[in-house]
Amino acid sequence: MSAFVSICEVGPRDGLQIAKTRMTTEAKVRWIQAIAAAGVREIEVGSFVPPRVIPQLSDTPEVVAAVLASVPGLIVQALAPNLRGVQNAYNAGVHKISIPISVSDGHSMANLNRTPAQSIEMMREVMAWMRAQPRQVPVIVGASTAFGCSIDGIVPTAKTVALAAGLADVGVEHIMLADTVGYAHPGQIKEVVRATRDAIGNRLYGLHLHDTCGLGIANALAGLEEGISAYDSCLAGLGGCPYAPGASGNVVTEDLVFMLESMGFETGIDLTKLIEARRVLHEGLPAEPMQGQVAKAGIPRTFRAAA
Amino acid sequence: MSAFVSICEVGPRDGLQIAKTRMTTEAKVRWIQAIAAAGVREIEVGSFVPPRVIPQLSDTPEVVAAVLASVPGLIVQALAPNLRGVQNAYNAGVHKISIPISVSDGHSMANLNRTPAQSIEMMREVMAWMRAQPRQVPVIVGASTAFGCSIDGIVPTAKTVALAAGLADVGVEHIMLADTVGYAHPGQIKEVVRATRDAIGNRLYGLHLHDTCGLGIANALAGLEEGISAYDSCLAGLGGCPYAPGASGNVVTEDLVFMLESMGFETGIDLTKLIEARRVLHEGLPAEPMQGQVAKAGIPRTFRAAA
Repeated sequence: MSAFVSICEVGPRDGLQIAKTRMTTEAKVRWIQAIAAAGVREIEVGSFVPPRVIPQLSDTPEVVAAVLASVPGLIVQALAPNLRGVQNAYNAGVHKISIPISVSDGHSMANLNRTPAQSIEMMREVMAWMRAQPRQVPVIVGASTAFGCSIDGIVPTAKTVALAAGLADVGVEHIMLADTVGYAHPGQIKEVVRATRDAIGNRLYGLHLHDTCGLGIANALAGLEEGISAYDSCLAGLGGCPYAPGASGNVVTEDLVFMLESMGFETGIDLTKLIEARRVLHEGLPAEPMQGQVAKAGIPRTFRAAA
Repeated sequence: MSAFVSICEVGPRDGLQIAKTRMTTEAKVRWIQAIAAAGVREIEVGSFVPPRVIPQLSDTPEVVAAVLASVPGLIVQALAPNLRGVQNAYNAGVHKISIPISVSDGHSMANLNRTPAQSIEMMREVMAWMRAQPRQVPVIVGASTAFGCSIDGIVPTAKTVALAAGLADVGVEHIMLADTVGYAHPGQIKEVVRATRDAIGNRLYGLHLHDTCGLGIANALAGLEEGISAYDSCLAGLGGCPYAPGASGNVVTEDLVFMLESMGFETGIDLTKLIEARRVLHEGLPAEPMQGQVAKAGIPRTFRAAA
C-alpha cells in the first residue's frame, strides 16, 4: 500500500478552459509555482490550440517558457489538439504532450470536427512525426467521453476499448481514459479499465475524472482498486468542457491527495502547501468559485498521525 | 448486483441539529412527506432530547405524530439519548429508535457526559426495558467517532470493536458505525468493518457517513464492497455534530442514490422526485446552503438508460 500514485494537475489547462474571467500570465505562473512547491511533479500548464479558440490559453507559449525557466524538476505538460499543436508544444520545449481524442462520435465532431477513425489516422501521423524527432517527448492520449457523453448518451465499453486498441495500433503508448462529462460510476470505471487493459495492457496509463455528479473521488477509488496509478485532477475542482453541456469541475486535487495519503499511497505532495496554493489561485482568479471539502473543513488532526 | 440497499434519511434530525435558523413543524412535515414520496422508506424525523438541549428538535413529538398520521408505510425513526428518551420515543409510537454511543472518551464526555463503559451499562438497561414492553421497537446504536474524533484524534480500530462487542454483549442487535466527524478513508472503512464483523457478525448493521473531507461517497463505496447494505444520509448534505468541531454535512442522499442506482443496486428511490424534495427543504429552511453535485449538474441522460 506504499505504492506511488502520480497526480497531474490540470487546473492551468482544463480548469481555466471555461473560467469566465481572464487570468494573467503572471498569475498563472505564480499559481503553477505554488502547486509545484507543494510537491506536484506534473502540471498541464496550457494548450497549443489556436488563440481564437480558447483566448484564456493564448499565452500558453509564454507560460511554458516561464515555468521551464523558473520551476526546475517540474514535468511540464501541454495539450495539443493536432500535429500542428504537437509541433508547437515540442518546439516550446514541453516534457509531455496530451492529445484529446473523443470516443463518442458526437463529442468528436463537436470538439474536434473529425470522426474517431480520422483521429486515429491523425495519431498515426503524430506518432510518426514524433519518432523522427531528435528528442522523444511522451505523448498521452486522453480518450474523452470514455464513460458516457452528454451529446451521444451511453458510450458502450466496446467503443472505448476499440478506440484504445486503434490508438495502440498506430503506436500510442500512453492512453488515459477520461470521464469528460462526469457520468461514470465506480462499477463502470472497473469494467472499462479491465476491458481496456485486456486490450492494450499497460498502455492504459491513467484516469481523468470529473466530479459532475459527486462520484469523482469514488471513481478514483475504483481506479485505485484496479491498479491505476496516474490521475489528472484540479486544484479547487475548477474546470469542465466547453463542448460538453452540463460538465462541471475536475476531481479536486486536495481531496484526492487527502484520500491517497490517508490510505497509505505516496504522492510526494504536501497537503498543507497544496491547500495554500488555493490562495494563489484565488488571487489570480477571484471570481471563480473554489470546490474542495478538505480545504474548507481543515486537515483532520488524525491525518498522517497514524503513519 | 441487484441487491437492495437501505437508505435512512437523517436530515430532519442530524441535518437540522446545527442549522442556524428554525424550521417550523409544518415545514418539517412537508419535507419528510416529500422525501417519503420519493420512495425513501426510513426517515429519522427528530430526537427525543430535552427541548433546551436542541431547541430546533423540540417539536419532535408533534413531527412524529404528524408523519405517523400522514405518511403510511414510512418507517419513522427517532433518536433517543438515554432510557428516558427511549421511553418517550416508544410512547410516541416510532418504529425504530437510534441511540448514539461514542467510541472515543472525549466525544463521549462532551456529547453524552458519561464514559463509553457507562454507556454500555445504560444500553443493558435500555434493552432490558425494551424486552419488557408489549411492542418490540428495533433499537439501532450508532457508534459515534468510530473512525476518528476531533477531540481525541485517532480512534484505534480495537477501541471501536471493543465498544461494538460490549454493546452486543448487553443485547444490542443493530450497530451502525458512524464517521461522526468525517475523518474516515476508504481503507479504514474496510478495516474497521471487517474487524467489527469478525467480532459481532451481522449485528453490524450499517454506516453513518459525513462528507467533511470529501470522502463520504468513496467511503460508502468501500462499505458496499464490504457488503454493508444500510446507510444514513441527508438530503442536500445538511448536518454535522454540535460537539465535534470541524464536522460538516452528512453524505448527500441524492449523490449516494445516484451512485447506488447507477451501479445496479436497488434503493426504491426515485432520484428525480428526491431532487424535487430539495425545493421543499429550501422553502422551509431558506438560509441553509444545500450541497450535492447531481442535483446541481442535473441527472445524466445515461442514468438508468442502460438498465
